Amino acid sequence: MLPVHLQPESHVPLYVQLRDQLRALVHAGDLRPGDRIPASRELAIMLGVHRTTVANAYAELESEGLIQGHVGRGTFIKGNGNGLKITPPAPPVLNGGGNGIRWELLFADERGEEVLSRLTASAPENALSFVMARPAQEFFPIDELQICVNAVLRREATDVLNLGPSDGYAPLKEALLELLEHEGIPARDENLLITDGCQQSLDLISKAFVRPGDSVILENPTYPGAVAIFGGTRARCLGVPIRTHAEPGTSLGLDLEALEATLAANRVKLIVLTPDFQNPTGTSMPLASRRKVLELASRHQVPVVEDHIYARLHAREDRLPSLKQLDRSNIVIHIDSFAKVAFPGLRVGWIVAPAMAIERLRVVKQTTDLHTDQLAQATLAEFLRRGMFSKHVAKMRKVYASRLVALDEALRKYMPEETRWTRPEGGMCLWLELPPGFDASELLIHSKERGVLFAPGRYFYAQNPLPNTLRLGYAGLDEKQIVRGVTILAELLRVEMRKRQRGVRRAERSRVALV
Amino acid sequence: MLPVHLQPESHVPLYVQLRDQLRALVHAGDLRPGDRIPASRELAIMLGVHRTTVANAYAELESEGLIQGHVGRGTFIKGNGNGLKITPPAPPVLNGGGNGIRWELLFADERGEEVLSRLTASAPENALSFVMARPAQEFFPIDELQICVNAVLRREATDVLNLGPSDGYAPLKEALLELLEHEGIPARDENLLITDGCQQSLDLISKAFVRPGDSVILENPTYPGAVAIFGGTRARCLGVPIRTHAEPGTSLGLDLEALEATLAANRVKLIVLTPDFQNPTGTSMPLASRRKVLELASRHQVPVVEDHIYARLHAREDRLPSLKQLDRSNIVIHIDSFAKVAFPGLRVGWIVAPAMAIERLRVVKQTTDLHTDQLAQATLAEFLRRGMFSKHVAKMRKVYASRLVALDEALRKYMPEETRWTRPEGGMCLWLELPPGFDASELLIHSKERGVLFAPGRYFYAQNPLPNTLRLGYAGLDEKQIVRGVTILAELLRVEMRKRQRGVRRAERSRVALV
Repeated sequence: MLPVHLQPESHVPLYVQLRDQLRALVHAGDLRPGDRIPASRELAIMLGVHRTTVANAYAELESEGLIQGHVGRGTFIKGNGNGLKITPPAPPVLNGGGNGIRWELLFADERGEEVLSRLTASAPENALSFVMARPAQEFFPIDELQICVNAVLRREATDVLNLGPSDGYAPLKEALLELLEHEGIPARDENLLITDGCQQSLDLISKAFVRPGDSVILENPTYPGAVAIFGGTRARCLGVPIRTHAEPGTSLGLDLEALEATLAANRVKLIVLTPDFQNPTGTSMPLASRRKVLELASRHQVPVVEDHIYARLHAREDRLPSLKQLDRSNIVIHIDSFAKVAFPGLRVGWIVAPAMAIERLRVVKQTTDLHTDQLAQATLAEFLRRGMFSKHVAKMRKVYASRLVALDEALRKYMPEETRWTRPEGGMCLWLELPPGFDASELLIHSKERGVLFAPGRYFYAQNPLPNTLRLGYAGLDEKQIVRGVTILAELLRVEMRKRQRGVRRAERSRVALV
Repeated sequence: MLPVHLQPESHVPLYVQLRDQLRALVHAGDLRPGDRIPASRELAIMLGVHRTTVANAYAELESEGLIQGHVGRGTFIKGNGNGLKITPPAPPVLNGGGNGIRWELLFADERGEEVLSRLTASAPENALSFVMARPAQEFFPIDELQICVNAVLRREATDVLNLGPSDGYAPLKEALLELLEHEGIPARDENLLITDGCQQSLDLISKAFVRPGDSVILENPTYPGAVAIFGGTRARCLGVPIRTHAEPGTSLGLDLEALEATLAANRVKLIVLTPDFQNPTGTSMPLASRRKVLELASRHQVPVVEDHIYARLHAREDRLPSLKQLDRSNIVIHIDSFAKVAFPGLRVGWIVAPAMAIERLRVVKQTTDLHTDQLAQATLAEFLRRGMFSKHVAKMRKVYASRLVALDEALRKYMPEETRWTRPEGGMCLWLELPPGFDASELLIHSKERGVLFAPGRYFYAQNPLPNTLRLGYAGLDEKQIVRGVTILAELLRVEMRKRQRGVRRAERSRVALV
């Protein structure tokens, strides 16, 4: 019997508790390579939990390389991660002799988990993956990039290869200021900081402005990387609901009443929002909501971090003004990056903010990693200057708009009536709700077997997760793949719904029999 | 009269107090663009401090773009940083109406300053700068780099441009593992994490292992970026002295008795060391010291962070084994980067450590910025694979060795007998002591006028700064420039020594007259 003790009343999901305890048993040497562990169904009964809980924990441990299933033989301990040899268990003392260190005793607080990439990691090779919200790699402008790199190295190699300023490579800053002006955001050099992308921008903002115990408002559901950052700073993350379906008297996107109430009841340090094509729901805030958010933030004197990473990918011709464009009070910290429109592998993003905030962020950036890689910065500056960026964005907008239409049409055609989904007008993802009582993680177990992957909604919640939600990232799949993926998902869901229907009928019958 | 109040008993240097108060007056709107401020001599008398104090504060404010001197007219307020327009002073309330935000009230704790780059910023264009410890840009292998970038983009552009794994781009990891093996460090994939350079490595290590209030041992003097990182985490930074000159019964480098005493008296979380060509002193730890450090660390179960960034630049043929090579107890976290040997503008470094420490650091890296730029990673992998790296290192070792000889010879030839300096056997910097009672910051004011720059030693101390020390970074200057720079420094120092001598004689004469 495994010495596992789960606490159903904890805020930590059961599968996370199980996964972490099993991992600890391996690292402590209590479970060793070759040891057999119970089948998921068996362990679920032993622990009194749903089989999905065990299956989820096993799936993650498998993708970590800790355990391995052998068809017909069972599941076995494989190693201590990455499938490699276990170091001998360290002595249990921290002081007083003995070799080796119990590293896990030295770890500072956990800073969130990275579950999404693991989901992909454990997938079959040819899976149709709706997991990530990433650009379509078949459209990477590789030739253009090569032209830019070579132009840069011919012209300014010494500048590029030297240490540079922490606020960014000057030619890139100039090119971005021009882009910003074109997009209705008047900014000067002192309002702009180059970063390694939006994840780093959030990290720098957290370091510059947030102390442990401070309150930060996040959307709920939200980008998990934001929860990891602010949770890592030991801030209180207050989730304000995202309305995924407009009801009479309310509007899509951030719940403004909840925002107002949260601001009134807490001394909030920052509000972090994605007004356009929000990750994970795909919803956008209407213009009136944007104005209202700025008014509330200004009244409470709370800066708003605007994540602008998806905004350029609008499916329709026109787009709503960004919070930064509407920002009369100078309270918006606007973050953006090249990752979603072109090159996720080049880590370059930027922050636009009042000069004083940028100056603080610049000092933090310097302490964090001196500056962003200059070969990437210089290459992207050239890419902007030659007009390749705007051309590429225009092209990708059409590609993604067409994929979005295909997804929506396939969902209408194949999905059971009891499901509903958001109607994004751009971006890279769509949010689907299964009938109440269904668990997306359970559906994923089946769909993975059929070669279709998606991200269960629970990973995106800062609090109160709805297990029947899921995110479909559609940008990386073409129209045919999208239709095939939706067909399979819909089919599986119908099977599950029929099973449940039969279960209900059986229960009704046995009730009848018992009467 | 300026409302400035200095506290001589504070641990904050007087010039820092003055600088910060003047900056605050500008930001509060009490000093406005165009306002004239007193000359440094005048303000020094008003405040009862040495003129150097005011001169240092002014020099930094000038390099920030806050003040500007006009020959013959005086010194004036220029703007609120970067020489740009001041935003109107914000209302003094945090809640309850009004536009704008008092950003400075929102800043989390200060995370150290970046003073060295400011020293260079305010220098004349053609100055001979011993300030930085940076590679010689005239030897940047630009053609080789261009060959590598193009090979990479032809062969693996899609992989490079996609999001990648947080632990690093696989081909770079493979190439580095081979390099490590060649250098006597057997490591596997799970022992290696790619980072954005040593500054980020320290930041990740701090996030992964250090909580506020934890104690961290640093060398004293040390790399200021390390103090900024661990100070920013609100750790206690305990400085262990570096012996720059061997006396009977002691050895160069880290003071082992002080290390032992510090470990015994404190529950230490990490020891951070640079065993080879330490920045700023240029000293190296003898083999016996290395073994002793590992023995002490192992006995106290404290991990050692080994900064290996200068170690490849040994002037002599042979080199001492790194701590990681000698690490029997698996307690060394070894950090290194490409910055000092080739390309500081490409931000790529690495960490070698036990698998469990790397796994923790990988999760922290993911939260911090997802992963390191992949164009730079892939290019450097190609640079390694084609043998260009080892060829370049061999060449640069000779270049720097010759510059080091030139520097030592010039110092012997020109410097007054009362000075002494370290005898580095590699690396990029040398540590000079002026006669007791002299202040390197004062010498810098004069030498800057003569076009020679260096880094005053005070910037490198975690505690108890010695004002008569200074660092000469020689790698970026050729032999002729080195000799000219030393000649000027020696000449200025002799002038100052004569002045002092006359002062002493005058004082003696007046004492005689009074008797």
